[in-house]
Amino acid sequence: MNELKGACIIGQSGGPTSVINASAYGVIDTALKSNLITQVLGAEYGIRGVLADRLFDMGLEDSHELELLKYTPSSALGSCRYKIAEPSKDDTDYKRILEVFRKHNVRYFFYNGGKDSMDTCNKINQYMQSVGYECRVMGVPKTIDNDLFGTDHCPGYGSAAKYIATSMMEVYQDAHVYDTGMIVVMEIMGRHAGWLTAAAALASEYGAGPDLLYLPETDFSMQKFIDSAKKIYAETGKCLIAVSEGIHYEDGDFVSEAKKSATDGFGHAQLGGLATILAEVLKEETGAKVRGIELNLLQRCGAHLASKTDIEESYMAGKAAVENALNGINGRMIGFERVIKNGRYACKTKLIPLMEVANAEKKIPKDWINETEDGVNRKFIEYALPLIQGEPDLPKVDSLPRFAHLKKILAK
Amino acid sequence: MNELKGACIIGQSGGPTSVINASAYGVIDTALKSNLITQVLGAEYGIRGVLADRLFDMGLEDSHELELLKYTPSSALGSCRYKIAEPSKDDTDYKRILEVFRKHNVRYFFYNGGKDSMDTCNKINQYMQSVGYECRVMGVPKTIDNDLFGTDHCPGYGSAAKYIATSMMEVYQDAHVYDTGMIVVMEIMGRHAGWLTAAAALASEYGAGPDLLYLPETDFSMQKFIDSAKKIYAETGKCLIAVSEGIHYEDGDFVSEAKKSATDGFGHAQLGGLATILAEVLKEETGAKVRGIELNLLQRCGAHLASKTDIEESYMAGKAAVENALNGINGRMIGFERVIKNGRYACKTKLIPLMEVANAEKKIPKDWINETEDGVNRKFIEYALPLIQGEPDLPKVDSLPRFAHLKKILAK
Repeated sequence: MNELKGACIIGQSGGPTSVINASAYGVIDTALKSNLITQVLGAEYGIRGVLADRLFDMGLEDSHELELLKYTPSSALGSCRYKIAEPSKDDTDYKRILEVFRKHNVRYFFYNGGKDSMDTCNKINQYMQSVGYECRVMGVPKTIDNDLFGTDHCPGYGSAAKYIATSMMEVYQDAHVYDTGMIVVMEIMGRHAGWLTAAAALASEYGAGPDLLYLPETDFSMQKFIDSAKKIYAETGKCLIAVSEGIHYEDGDFVSEAKKSATDGFGHAQLGGLATILAEVLKEETGAKVRGIELNLLQRCGAHLASKTDIEESYMAGKAAVENALNGINGRMIGFERVIKNGRYACKTKLIPLMEVANAEKKIPKDWINETEDGVNRKFIEYALPLIQGEPDLPKVDSLPRFAHLKKILAK
Repeated sequence: MNELKGACIIGQSGGPTSVINASAYGVIDTALKSNLITQVLGAEYGIRGVLADRLFDMGLEDSHELELLKYTPSSALGSCRYKIAEPSKDDTDYKRILEVFRKHNVRYFFYNGGKDSMDTCNKINQYMQSVGYECRVMGVPKTIDNDLFGTDHCPGYGSAAKYIATSMMEVYQDAHVYDTGMIVVMEIMGRHAGWLTAAAALASEYGAGPDLLYLPETDFSMQKFIDSAKKIYAETGKCLIAVSEGIHYEDGDFVSEAKKSATDGFGHAQLGGLATILAEVLKEETGAKVRGIELNLLQRCGAHLASKTDIEESYMAGKAAVENALNGINGRMIGFERVIKNGRYACKTKLIPLMEVANAEKKIPKDWINETEDGVNRKFIEYALPLIQGEPDLPKVDSLPRFAHLKKILAK
């Protein structure tokens, strides 16, 4: 094995999750313990911090505060949505990254993010190889959207799914309190994949789920939606609906965008989010009292409802990235493989080429969606339920969350 | 002491809270143990269930399920917003209530709700006295709004406040993740009193609170709001704002209503909630990326974040109502008195005439609000912090909440 000595960088990118910092902690904790890694650097705002040479010396942080990262939502180092150029078209950024890598003798680069971040990771890896600079580049997955290719599931998904299912169960209680009619539309994140919205169906296992659930994996028909909702409302006086922000008509137009669909002929002049739009449509159709609820940022930063399984797996992904890199692995993202032992869920890490992850997207399989395309079946429930399990022992002060406070001292 | 033997009714009314069922359980549990109370009846949908003679025999419920009411949000018996007539104008309802009371030999009536419910309670009590039917009528308070007169605080407030403060802390992390500008407006319930919105300031104690906070206790100026937000945004690149749904201009017009204010001259044609409206105003003014977040129903049913103190006090209020009624007390609402012993918070019950509660409303004292009227001071923090304390041991199945399942068998 080629032992490689030098500094490492950990960067975070893309939208935050409740547990992205648990992965960062997995990287930092493991790297700090390694004799080969001479310095652990945290990039401020992802790759932008590398470009700006804004790198924190993680070895100067208090170890207890670092451990609190496991329970601190959002990206503690700062994140970015910076799109790096194709190196063949413009290699300015890559030259600068190389310069900073050389300056700090960076030989390990860990990037913690979703699909776009894996693309960045892949490009940096290819560039470093092309110029003969030895650096092991590893992707650490993160996304509440759960849409990364090649992995059973993604760190961040389980906690968001738990937040959504719990909130759905609570709103169910609330929406059924009066003897008068009530329709509630809950809008859930996920522009292209319906994993998060489907998580609302976990509440159905306990008798408090949505009556209807719409995913971006299928084409939305406003007329079918209205007919279904009206039928349920007529029968029960209530209708609870979970809907993905990314639902679209057959022609591809997002329902959230205020234009007339060629398919359905429905238009909506309202501003406001999708939940409001759909709630208003049903108000007109039924005369019912309606509520549009958008889970908004809350679903991706609701660390107080994090899944212990998710936290532990997120840490494990970060740890595995470092361990594999130290063992000579390069250009891979850590993925998860589901292992069922004696009927019990377990999870182990695997390695997926960055190239493959950067160019694909994982959606809910068609045969997990019901025939009427307004719900998911047992296959989804069995898939998702293990991911939300376990209550983390959340550190609190005065019954409010105690998040990590980092000193963020720039490396010399 | 006049020992009064007969059945009791517990009814729930108004908007739900996370802990209203803890109070109902306090009533039911205490009443079931009493030798004087011959039958414990739960009214379906509050007073409407009495009018319809839809009364559940709570003695037939499983005792474990009843205990789960402590952790089950919303009104398990069903609620209503039924406005009872003045008995002098129309006594139809009262005659019917008397008929149902006689039928089941109801001698105790416990009504669990907010200000309007206490008004209903008061009127029923006066009617029963006027016709010489002996029945002890007691109010059990409930409201996330915390606006009931004569009590230090209200059951339901502490849990909602904890939900709001925790969510604010998490959103703070999320809103500060990028190096780009971001403005977030969080809309919180409370049409006439700002107690809930002020709870967002608890997050400031831990460095993750709103920069600006607007209450219905003061007049809102759109120009002042814009100036303050722009100043903070210019300095920090971020601005986090908590705003009550009930903020209004000097002339009394709600800011959430789409009309031009005579005071400020600002108008807004947007539909959508107040958070969206204010976020759009700031987007125009600053060009920043904005997010409007409405906590919506989530804040009043988020039992997973309930305060243990609130649950215990809510139970205590229900218990005290029964005990006092058994001791001959009548026409009172249970209130809370704060007792500071050796610098530690404690709470005991007291009795407040229903008449007084029905006609008053408690707002945040002016001297708890800061001079610039965009925040609260230490007096509020010291008041509210004890109310959110303690983590209840929430029953879960598969890491999702296990709510009470009642059989709801109608009384013969």
